Amino acid sequence: MLDVCLLGSGGMMPLPYRYLTSLILRLNGNNILIDCGEGTQMALRKKGWSSNPIGLILFTHYHADHISGLPGLLLTMGNAERTDPVLIAGPKGLERVVRALLVIAPELPFEIEFMEFTGDTEFRFQDYRIEAFRVNHNIICYGYTIHIDRAGKFNAERAKEIGIPIRYWSHLQRGERIRTEDGAEYLPEMVMGKERKGIKLTYTTDSRPTDSIAAHAADSDLFICEGMYGEMDKVSKAREYKHMTMYEAAQIAKSAGVKRLWLTHFSPSLLDPREFMGEVRKIFPLAEPGKDGKSIELHYEEE
Amino acid sequence: MLDVCLLGSGGMMPLPYRYLTSLILRLNGNNILIDCGEGTQMALRKKGWSSNPIGLILFTHYHADHISGLPGLLLTMGNAERTDPVLIAGPKGLERVVRALLVIAPELPFEIEFMEFTGDTEFRFQDYRIEAFRVNHNIICYGYTIHIDRAGKFNAERAKEIGIPIRYWSHLQRGERIRTEDGAEYLPEMVMGKERKGIKLTYTTDSRPTDSIAAHAADSDLFICEGMYGEMDKVSKAREYKHMTMYEAAQIAKSAGVKRLWLTHFSPSLLDPREFMGEVRKIFPLAEPGKDGKSIELHYEEE
Repeated sequence: MLDVCLLGSGGMMPLPYRYLTSLILRLNGNNILIDCGEGTQMALRKKGWSSNPIGLILFTHYHADHISGLPGLLLTMGNAERTDPVLIAGPKGLERVVRALLVIAPELPFEIEFMEFTGDTEFRFQDYRIEAFRVNHNIICYGYTIHIDRAGKFNAERAKEIGIPIRYWSHLQRGERIRTEDGAEYLPEMVMGKERKGIKLTYTTDSRPTDSIAAHAADSDLFICEGMYGEMDKVSKAREYKHMTMYEAAQIAKSAGVKRLWLTHFSPSLLDPREFMGEVRKIFPLAEPGKDGKSIELHYEEE
Repeated sequence: MLDVCLLGSGGMMPLPYRYLTSLILRLNGNNILIDCGEGTQMALRKKGWSSNPIGLILFTHYHADHISGLPGLLLTMGNAERTDPVLIAGPKGLERVVRALLVIAPELPFEIEFMEFTGDTEFRFQDYRIEAFRVNHNIICYGYTIHIDRAGKFNAERAKEIGIPIRYWSHLQRGERIRTEDGAEYLPEMVMGKERKGIKLTYTTDSRPTDSIAAHAADSDLFICEGMYGEMDKVSKAREYKHMTMYEAAQIAKSAGVKRLWLTHFSPSLLDPREFMGEVRKIFPLAEPGKDGKSIELHYEEE
């Protein structure tokens, strides 16, 4: 089960009732944070989730509204006596930006590891498979697709037939190859069915609509996308500053065939996104306005 | 009239209901902010006060809980189309720290001017007279006393006797010397009474009690002081980390003979400072627990 919480849903400037855009994912005690604007640690605390199991922090880009909460969050993790390293990943320039911010958080009791993307990248972190892909903002910016892969079903009948000792079963289920002392070899494909549908989440903010977003979002269980403006007359503003309207987000959701869409990264000028949902849902009926603290548990589909 | 608002009353880590310590002063359209932790711009917005008239930002020191909100605040001031320069003042190292943080706020439409203290300093900003003085923390840290000076009473009878034309009166009231075209000289001291009591406010956080604090706080109309801990058994912790308990703050307030004391910079472990006020008021009856948004108007005393 993947626990998802939109910690903040604001863009550009935090408001007293709206933290800056940040998302947290929880899975098996290893959490990922995506973006960390001013107030993220307050939002996390409000949700009642600890900052300490965050092992990976992903950044879409380095505008202040997406990263200004980082020094405070790292300090709080340090104050909670974290000693495990934290991996921080994002577009090129990451280490320079983070090291500059660390001038006000100089003595952390844990290491920071950096991973900088110079193009579309796929990597694994714990039980997550992460795709980072370029989007189209006024500075280099990435979107993320997070996969929780699910192995095929284990065929116990078949394992018994082959005579694989039970002590190897869990290894094979985890995809490991076994070579026993007496020379027998057992491979996962001997006993595992076809890979089953996992969980897929896609997150993008600060971008014009792009083919890369639609392609990566395809069939996502949850697509969280910027819907900075709802007013029809703000389309040109969205174009100029390379942001997205709610309707553009809904069009992508529709063409990508996602299961649900959460809008986020609202302009401070936009007081209540619900106001525009009627129009948005004409394009994509499963659209929902994001709000601070909105969360969902995403489960594997039943067999 | 000096408008004072404690924007945040938390130390170390912001809580969902407690922003980090920050104070704002408003006087004649020129505002001063002291410290700017994460969330300060949210607190300001919650109070309904604009960030734009802030002309001076003072820092006590550069631990993240006192400065992490700066990049976001400056960006918001920029988004509000500010073009007037902002003066930022604080202990040595200021420019290095602020320039590092500006990596995430690179294109501000206004200049930043820096003033770094290397020892106790007195200077004027608009209608404020500011004393910066060293306190005793684990890094260099300053406290501030803000004076709103008040000239003596203008003696109109005397001005008429001397025959000073009315058009010069307001200049003399502002302390200017007048030399007329026909060679007459009028000096403020000819017509102004003795300087009257102005308004005095003293602000210190992150320090052990020091003589410098007591001396500068003397007779303040408002003394805002760290009271990080209220539990009696936290005295040794306060000593170790160079902070102050509520009782130590009350002792200073008493010996300095201030008019009122607001406690602030509460430890995140301290849930409700009111719990300890009974004991605190045994030392200094005019002590009040600070809380976010607490504000007061300080007026000149009547003649």
